[in-house]
Amino acid sequence: MDRRFFLFATGGLSLSPFVPQSSQPTEAAKDVTRTLARYIVSAKPSDLPASVRKEAARTLLNWVGCTLGGSRHETVSIAISAMALFSGPAQASILGRKERLDILNAALINGISSHVLDYDDTHSRNIIHPAGPVISAILALSEHHPVSGNEFVNALVLGVDAECRIGNSVYPKHYDVGWHITGTAGVFGAAAASGKLLGLSEQQMLWALGLAATQPVGLQEMFGSMTKSFHPGRAAQNGLTAALLASKNFTSSEQSLEAKYGWANVVSAAHNYDDITKRLGESFEISKNTYKPFACGVVMHPTIDGCIQLRNENKLSGDEIDRVELRVHPLVMQLTSKKSPQTGLEGKFSIYHAASVALVEGAGGIEQFSDRAVRDRTIASLRDRVSTVVDSSLHGDQVRIAVVTKNGRRLEKFVEHAVGSLDHPMSDKDLEAKFTGLANGVLPPDRQRKLMDLCWSVEGLPKAAAVADAARVT
Amino acid sequence: MDRRFFLFATGGLSLSPFVPQSSQPTEAAKDVTRTLARYIVSAKPSDLPASVRKEAARTLLNWVGCTLGGSRHETVSIAISAMALFSGPAQASILGRKERLDILNAALINGISSHVLDYDDTHSRNIIHPAGPVISAILALSEHHPVSGNEFVNALVLGVDAECRIGNSVYPKHYDVGWHITGTAGVFGAAAASGKLLGLSEQQMLWALGLAATQPVGLQEMFGSMTKSFHPGRAAQNGLTAALLASKNFTSSEQSLEAKYGWANVVSAAHNYDDITKRLGESFEISKNTYKPFACGVVMHPTIDGCIQLRNENKLSGDEIDRVELRVHPLVMQLTSKKSPQTGLEGKFSIYHAASVALVEGAGGIEQFSDRAVRDRTIASLRDRVSTVVDSSLHGDQVRIAVVTKNGRRLEKFVEHAVGSLDHPMSDKDLEAKFTGLANGVLPPDRQRKLMDLCWSVEGLPKAAAVADAARVT
Repeated sequence: MDRRFFLFATGGLSLSPFVPQSSQPTEAAKDVTRTLARYIVSAKPSDLPASVRKEAARTLLNWVGCTLGGSRHETVSIAISAMALFSGPAQASILGRKERLDILNAALINGISSHVLDYDDTHSRNIIHPAGPVISAILALSEHHPVSGNEFVNALVLGVDAECRIGNSVYPKHYDVGWHITGTAGVFGAAAASGKLLGLSEQQMLWALGLAATQPVGLQEMFGSMTKSFHPGRAAQNGLTAALLASKNFTSSEQSLEAKYGWANVVSAAHNYDDITKRLGESFEISKNTYKPFACGVVMHPTIDGCIQLRNENKLSGDEIDRVELRVHPLVMQLTSKKSPQTGLEGKFSIYHAASVALVEGAGGIEQFSDRAVRDRTIASLRDRVSTVVDSSLHGDQVRIAVVTKNGRRLEKFVEHAVGSLDHPMSDKDLEAKFTGLANGVLPPDRQRKLMDLCWSVEGLPKAAAVADAARVT
Repeated sequence: MDRRFFLFATGGLSLSPFVPQSSQPTEAAKDVTRTLARYIVSAKPSDLPASVRKEAARTLLNWVGCTLGGSRHETVSIAISAMALFSGPAQASILGRKERLDILNAALINGISSHVLDYDDTHSRNIIHPAGPVISAILALSEHHPVSGNEFVNALVLGVDAECRIGNSVYPKHYDVGWHITGTAGVFGAAAASGKLLGLSEQQMLWALGLAATQPVGLQEMFGSMTKSFHPGRAAQNGLTAALLASKNFTSSEQSLEAKYGWANVVSAAHNYDDITKRLGESFEISKNTYKPFACGVVMHPTIDGCIQLRNENKLSGDEIDRVELRVHPLVMQLTSKKSPQTGLEGKFSIYHAASVALVEGAGGIEQFSDRAVRDRTIASLRDRVSTVVDSSLHGDQVRIAVVTKNGRRLEKFVEHAVGSLDHPMSDKDLEAKFTGLANGVLPPDRQRKLMDLCWSVEGLPKAAAVADAARVT
């Protein structure tokens, strides 16, 4: 009889000395989960540095914009049509839509909307999309369980810290084996943040993290299908479920991260627990969050950034330009060399279109990667006059651009770090412009303005749920 | 820029040639998921051999009994209290209770009830508890989406086939790394069976399996806590969710099992896809299902079996017995050597109690491992006169028993294969006795009888939901 038979033999729930109830972690791995849980339950809003609180507002504003922008996508409509018959009371808003669902289903659907355009935030170290799992869970929860904006911001920061620290501890090995880390680590973020708002004790928070650990979501194989955006949504829903169960004393492991048969050992070939426990309360992962300025893969971002700068600095119009010469990183031509895109989607894989539309329209949002933009005469004409040279000496976020005007001027731009990178973050104004591009057609301008103001001032709101309320369509 | 950056760069949903939409499986692994999906959607009730249909009824009866028996457990009450506020309409029954929840929450709760006593069925090859994920999902579904008993049995057999074939393909490596295979493979069983009842096309079944693959549940670290029984419940709920989404054309991977970053590669160090696709429709995994006859770990089962036989063959009463001598497999003394148990739970880890109670009461059910039984004078007295000798020549399901009566008779019994093993399955009568022991106190005897009859005759029922209806408390 081996261990498997032994487990089968004795069952699991019996709280007996014979049952390997918790595999013993090694000395080095002691109390990882407990240290994190203790920090989460004890951290106060007043402990957060101003810069961290500000980044939380930026993360929220970006998430709301992306979620509004994605809210009309077919993926979202299908998910609602599949789930609505089984939803509980109309407790929480679906951003950008009329439907209201129970908080668990709302967390799922908003999480899907937030990711479906692939335009959401990205942690610069572990490529987790931090807001999806966390905000989708706690914004829905806040509509049922009222919390102040101050508490909401604290929970948001702690949730992002939990998921990103846990993500850091297994990155990149965990990612390389094929897990979609936003879904697998994200569930911890949703559980931690939701549990914080529910006022869990340390013991309950340990259980919530255990219940999160046992429900990882997401294989990379799903990329290219609707199931990719299901991952952050389901992570939000699973984490919120974990916190709700723990709040009623549904028991779980107390060392779910570090135990021999716990999360880190099961889902990753390597891990560094220090990433989870080091400098808790001093260093905040949300400070490493980044936002995509342009609605396409990041390889084209330096080019779009530089073209917009050249256009604005020189007050260029598309008609004045004779030709454009790009020196680009090799991956640009590997990934985005489509010469004559016919649809908005194909435009996302055409560096020629990207340069042209950025020069003509001064932007790189959803609208610039629409069928309309790709088929626009001026843009299409200029696209044919964009040439590229691969330059291996460039880094991935660099580009050299030369624009030659019809009257013979040569305008040059070297982009050192594309906007949106951690070295060159989007400004608040950039974020607002992105938000507007996403919210157009979903909310009228005055409501967009009101919603952005609510996001910027979230800390001071008596009820955080005001954000959700302002983001729904009536 | 590496693959991670590349993925980050291009996003996932864009259906572009640049996106590694589906990692290419090796030649050998081609069409594994499709072969399984095609079989599931095409298999007809009339294709099932009579022995397979009979085993399905036995699996159903055993599941209903276990679920009734577990339905009053604290774990179940807590889960309901956490979820009820967020549940949808009262669509489906919680067995053994008054509450009705939406079908997804009912699948979760019934799945928890079915496993919480560690008394449910076990597949003899891969130690999956097959019924929990599958029946918890489809019985709830059948209350909302009416199906005949014939269709129900077919879906049950197909669901068990899907989860157990997939389990076989990665067992034991997948289990050894720390996954609770009932939750990780079980989700496929729930998706396949639910999808069959929903009438999914082959394309939709592929998506349902993809959505199942991306939601594995269960770390072994949770053993010893309430979260262990959460696993089959959540697997049922996730699989049913997967089928519902796929039924509305929520897209997913089409090679979720065999793709490079698909399920088998991500969750297991080794796999054999032949286990999934070989002899589909000819060999049925439900034929390898086993049922626990006694409410304790299987190491004590040979002793209980032999003692009951000796008692019945010799019409023994506890008072007549002077002493009992056991020659047992070494693991018996490693795991169940508690000399003087004080509670029913401790009784589960006392071979002395097990032998004594079996001789005195002729049974080994829930009632025989209660506080009452452990404290019973006659049982406790005889317990002190049970002696053990370890015999390494014995197999795990063997025992040599000698009972010496007060009037000097020596009665011996060698158990070759304990009842409940695949070599010596429980009879239908045994299953009914187990059922009754579990249902006592939950349903009155006449309703127990009616419910057992419904299980035996499930194939002929116009509506399979009649089973759920008869198992709820009004």
